[in-house]
Amino acid sequence: MPGPEEFVVTPYEVRGRIDYDKLREQFGTQAITAELLARLRRLAGGELSPLLARGIYYSHRDLGALLDGFEHGRPFFLYSGRGPSGPLHTSHLVQFELCRWIQERFRVPMYIQITDDEKFWARSGLSREEIARWGLENLYDILALGFDPKRTHVFFDSRSIAALYPLAIRVARKIPYSTVKAVFGFEPSTNIGLVFYTALQSVPCFWPSWAEGKEVPCLIPCGVDQDPHFRVTRDVAEGLGYPKPALLHSQMIPALTGDGAMSTTGSPADAALFLDDPPAVVERKVRNAFTGGRATVEEQRRLGATPEICSIWALWRTRFAESEAKFQEVTAGCRSGSLLCGECKASLLERIRPFLRTHAEARERTKAWAESTIVTEAPRPL
Amino acid sequence: MPGPEEFVVTPYEVRGRIDYDKLREQFGTQAITAELLARLRRLAGGELSPLLARGIYYSHRDLGALLDGFEHGRPFFLYSGRGPSGPLHTSHLVQFELCRWIQERFRVPMYIQITDDEKFWARSGLSREEIARWGLENLYDILALGFDPKRTHVFFDSRSIAALYPLAIRVARKIPYSTVKAVFGFEPSTNIGLVFYTALQSVPCFWPSWAEGKEVPCLIPCGVDQDPHFRVTRDVAEGLGYPKPALLHSQMIPALTGDGAMSTTGSPADAALFLDDPPAVVERKVRNAFTGGRATVEEQRRLGATPEICSIWALWRTRFAESEAKFQEVTAGCRSGSLLCGECKASLLERIRPFLRTHAEARERTKAWAESTIVTEAPRPL
Repeated sequence: MPGPEEFVVTPYEVRGRIDYDKLREQFGTQAITAELLARLRRLAGGELSPLLARGIYYSHRDLGALLDGFEHGRPFFLYSGRGPSGPLHTSHLVQFELCRWIQERFRVPMYIQITDDEKFWARSGLSREEIARWGLENLYDILALGFDPKRTHVFFDSRSIAALYPLAIRVARKIPYSTVKAVFGFEPSTNIGLVFYTALQSVPCFWPSWAEGKEVPCLIPCGVDQDPHFRVTRDVAEGLGYPKPALLHSQMIPALTGDGAMSTTGSPADAALFLDDPPAVVERKVRNAFTGGRATVEEQRRLGATPEICSIWALWRTRFAESEAKFQEVTAGCRSGSLLCGECKASLLERIRPFLRTHAEARERTKAWAESTIVTEAPRPL
Repeated sequence: MPGPEEFVVTPYEVRGRIDYDKLREQFGTQAITAELLARLRRLAGGELSPLLARGIYYSHRDLGALLDGFEHGRPFFLYSGRGPSGPLHTSHLVQFELCRWIQERFRVPMYIQITDDEKFWARSGLSREEIARWGLENLYDILALGFDPKRTHVFFDSRSIAALYPLAIRVARKIPYSTVKAVFGFEPSTNIGLVFYTALQSVPCFWPSWAEGKEVPCLIPCGVDQDPHFRVTRDVAEGLGYPKPALLHSQMIPALTGDGAMSTTGSPADAALFLDDPPAVVERKVRNAFTGGRATVEEQRRLGATPEICSIWALWRTRFAESEAKFQEVTAGCRSGSLLCGECKASLLERIRPFLRTHAEARERTKAWAESTIVTEAPRPL
């Protein structure tokens, strides 16, 4: 167990209380500056996604160069992925909502990778059948956020392998075992599927360049824990003749139970708000959620509460505050003690309920076209 | 370098003078007994392939149990493969000729794997384009040996990956890195493609069982250096619910230059007789080939020569002695000194020339149907 000052962040483990500035130094990434945010706002037509405006995305690699290219007429594409081990929860929205917003504002293609092979190799405890079913269910949820059917392409690994493998062959040859061992902390007992996997996770970063026969830059919005995967990708990019992918890193979203990050597996079900939770379950989870509140009402009125450690505040912040004004009102009310936790939760529930209802309807509509987004053929044989 | 008593046999390295009995003990395989040969002869309709009769195949795993099943109405299938790094040479015939003979005599399906991915990962020094081209050229040569188009199926890895991958996902999870490191001697610098590869090489052993939804036993005739690959396969078979593949092991065929085994890469071109060598090249290679002859004619007449170390005798033995009588005549003449090397070579050339001519014609005819043997679809999605 790490001490209070220690933390561990890898694609396969997130532990301890993360110091994001320290992590940025450890990983060697850049801060998202006010200047960069202003530039994004301008290019996006004068608005900024709350996920950027509220600092949830806080770090990047090469975003400036990507925007330089965009301004000089070189469009990029978005890439993000999902390891399907269960239903999506609200912290997944952080990743896909930003993608959707960028797709809409910058009118760029989106590539989504559903990593059903990796989830099996990483011993999620699920059968291939269960993982494949979750893969499709998750895809409906992702597409339902509002992705443009004409600009959205899906690599569902086991079904898209013919499209991915010719490029994976080239990528895999560039990556020695020693690299993946060092980056992911693999053990002798790690299975050879997981050892290979990072090659397949790198492929979408280069796929459009390969398909179009010219450099198409890639932007990956992801949780900061996924950065190590793409450091490997960036290291091999030039040797393969493709541009290094740019990255946008988000902070980890705290669990409703107040202990660590929200996750689908390895956490109790109450740690996360799943998109398919029935209304009574949502209500119970929110009512029981860990907050930054005080022990008594009197104390809270007097001293105020602490939004930074509150799982409810994190929900307002990531998506449910419909405006900056509302977000500031909640934050200020919390800090001053004028907004009590019960009241805050009730107000949040009023926003979550219609969102989940609307989402469930949108999700049904994606079933008509979701399969058509799955890429099954390579653009060329080699 | 190994001493004179030492030898190394792995899929990626064959060094030293191999003691086949010792290797059988090292690998823990069974000898092919006279009784087993008699049984094979009976089941094959009263004849025996020269490759079996002359002891080139000398060791096996579970052949008895496979034949038990066959006699009780459970047909098996054959599986063999080729890493395409250049033209086929005559020692490849050892593997594919036995397959052809078994297919004809036992009327069983044959699965051929063309491992264009592995050859790239194993750093053959060739580009993906060159390897893919050799893959197709090699396939024509293999099919031209007389495989039955209706019973022959090809996994051309990069083109068949959609058919192989769902099963490869399951196989790979069963194989820890420590196993492939120990079996193949992988180093930290080994690329993650090669680490993964043994999963894909195992898939054809189980594929027909997967496709048919019942146990279909597999028989693999291969050079003994390939045994380690399939020990891994055999170890994971039961856990996946499939029968362990049976194996037939051949000895390594000596190089024409007299130093080690014939190989496509890593040896001078004169070490092997390629199926596409022009007549003048064939003549030169045979004339210059290393033999078991003596320093002078007089000495050879008096003491006789040594067939066991002779690359020319190996050619008679593996395919060019058209009958057992002819093979015994050549062997006895060599040993007694009545047959001199020049005369022996001239007689062999008379057999090689028409074989290569006929083969080249048969090869052209396979081009009409070779592509149709390539399997591109999985029998089921998972």
